[in-house]
Amino acid sequence: MPNTKIRGVLSPVLTPFNADYSISKPRFLKHCRSLIDQDVGLAVFGTNSEANSLSTGEKRQLLDLLADEGLPAGKMMPGTGCCAISDSIELTRHAVELGCGGVLMLPPFYYKGVGDEGLYRNYATIIDAIGDARLKIYLYHIPQVSQVGIGLALIERLLKDYPGTIAGIKDSSGDWNNTLAMLQQFQPAGFDVFAGSEAFLLQTLRHGGAGCITATGNVNAAAIARLHATWREDGADAQQADLNTVRGVFQKLPLISAMKSAIASQAGDPAWSVVRPPLVELTGEQSRQLDAELSGIGFQINNPQALAHADA
Amino acid sequence: MPNTKIRGVLSPVLTPFNADYSISKPRFLKHCRSLIDQDVGLAVFGTNSEANSLSTGEKRQLLDLLADEGLPAGKMMPGTGCCAISDSIELTRHAVELGCGGVLMLPPFYYKGVGDEGLYRNYATIIDAIGDARLKIYLYHIPQVSQVGIGLALIERLLKDYPGTIAGIKDSSGDWNNTLAMLQQFQPAGFDVFAGSEAFLLQTLRHGGAGCITATGNVNAAAIARLHATWREDGADAQQADLNTVRGVFQKLPLISAMKSAIASQAGDPAWSVVRPPLVELTGEQSRQLDAELSGIGFQINNPQALAHADA
Repeated sequence: MPNTKIRGVLSPVLTPFNADYSISKPRFLKHCRSLIDQDVGLAVFGTNSEANSLSTGEKRQLLDLLADEGLPAGKMMPGTGCCAISDSIELTRHAVELGCGGVLMLPPFYYKGVGDEGLYRNYATIIDAIGDARLKIYLYHIPQVSQVGIGLALIERLLKDYPGTIAGIKDSSGDWNNTLAMLQQFQPAGFDVFAGSEAFLLQTLRHGGAGCITATGNVNAAAIARLHATWREDGADAQQADLNTVRGVFQKLPLISAMKSAIASQAGDPAWSVVRPPLVELTGEQSRQLDAELSGIGFQINNPQALAHADA
Repeated sequence: MPNTKIRGVLSPVLTPFNADYSISKPRFLKHCRSLIDQDVGLAVFGTNSEANSLSTGEKRQLLDLLADEGLPAGKMMPGTGCCAISDSIELTRHAVELGCGGVLMLPPFYYKGVGDEGLYRNYATIIDAIGDARLKIYLYHIPQVSQVGIGLALIERLLKDYPGTIAGIKDSSGDWNNTLAMLQQFQPAGFDVFAGSEAFLLQTLRHGGAGCITATGNVNAAAIARLHATWREDGADAQQADLNTVRGVFQKLPLISAMKSAIASQAGDPAWSVVRPPLVELTGEQSRQLDAELSGIGFQINNPQALAHADA
């Protein structure tokens, strides 16, 4: 992993599927290229990537694909935190070997009510097993989905024992007070705090944070990256308000299915709407409503044609 | 899979680890043999097996080990429900090819608030992908852990579309009214309802159910199997009360760690106490307290020496 740490805007890259639920590698590659072209890093295998609907083998193959096709590993932060520590070690090791800029690591999320000691051991065991100074772990706090959270005391203990390796966090709690506490307590020591959505991007940057890792980066990449690039300039608040308007439309619906529907519609590539079970795609009525609302606010995905697969 | 369906008592087999968290295959094999000898079936890879702390590859290896060593596949009901449908298909297919009596299938449990349509598609896609009449799926309802439950309407739809393949359920909700509703609505059609613990074994049998799949089968196998074998005889209620007393002692503590601690202590094999993160083993004080309480009720694991590993 490179010495310069990832900052700015990353997106949990949507994973496109074919109608039979197999992964559409051509669409995935095109989408990743489009994000990189818009200066958005690749947090592949996040929640909004349907990462937990992919096997470890499938994730390895996708990482290999990106590496083979020459996408910049330094701008990749794959999700490698699985329920099974053996899976987390395998995926994380692979990401380090490929030179990824970092990994985004969920806590193991099947067993509920586990304590900090068990979560500490999970991360410590992974770090020790990999034993590579290039490893940079970004903790992933999304308690409303994982039901297993990462609190301040655990971060403090991990940072003390693994400085440099424990590189930062994505705070997807949606609780600004929690993000603020991390910004105040840990960011000064170089622990990079990423907001979990662009809704908190400007606030996070103004408090010294590193950027955001946001689902809607999949559809609104350029505008979110622009706020990160120009946040000290006049008009930043207006930019933030515009971002919030777009996000607000998508957020009314199940987010993953809504983003895939919008891409399918604007790219003219219906296969883009496929999600793996247990998720379901939007209904036709929901899709039409979404298209109408996006049109109503004048929103267009950047260069959607670039996302359509040749076979579409 | 055989034509005769599994009934009676099964146990989610504890997975023994070495100090470095690798799987102790010799201990696993001995424990499985001991359970079979006590007429308890092998629901390997259940919640209490720390199944979700094992990779798909590790689970395949353990299944292969049991098959290679000649344990009866017809008495195996491995847990094969994973977050990723690709993992569920791979593991389930492997279980069918080995001739397992059935598979116990969690719903995908990362995404929360998913609807019945997505859960239906998950099971239907797996069944269609495997396309083998030998497949027998037992649904696994444990909402307090998975946070994704399996309701009556979903069962009804699956049973209608996949009769014979949807073979039954383990109800670990702890809600007798839910178990009773399943017994009344679906058991008469041959959908086998297993109680999620021996605490409901007698009630379940008296209402026509198939048996129980219970964690404490790992430590109290013979007594639980005896109640199943003799439940129509006098003294069944007293047997049930005795089972509840033993379970009550274990249940005061984190159950997996407590059962492993008791085996470690009674077998004289400390390695048995190891659990994978995010779980943690009992403290020394908790272990001593457990030993004292078990001693106080005169409880002894059957033939604990058979569980100790030669290297211990």
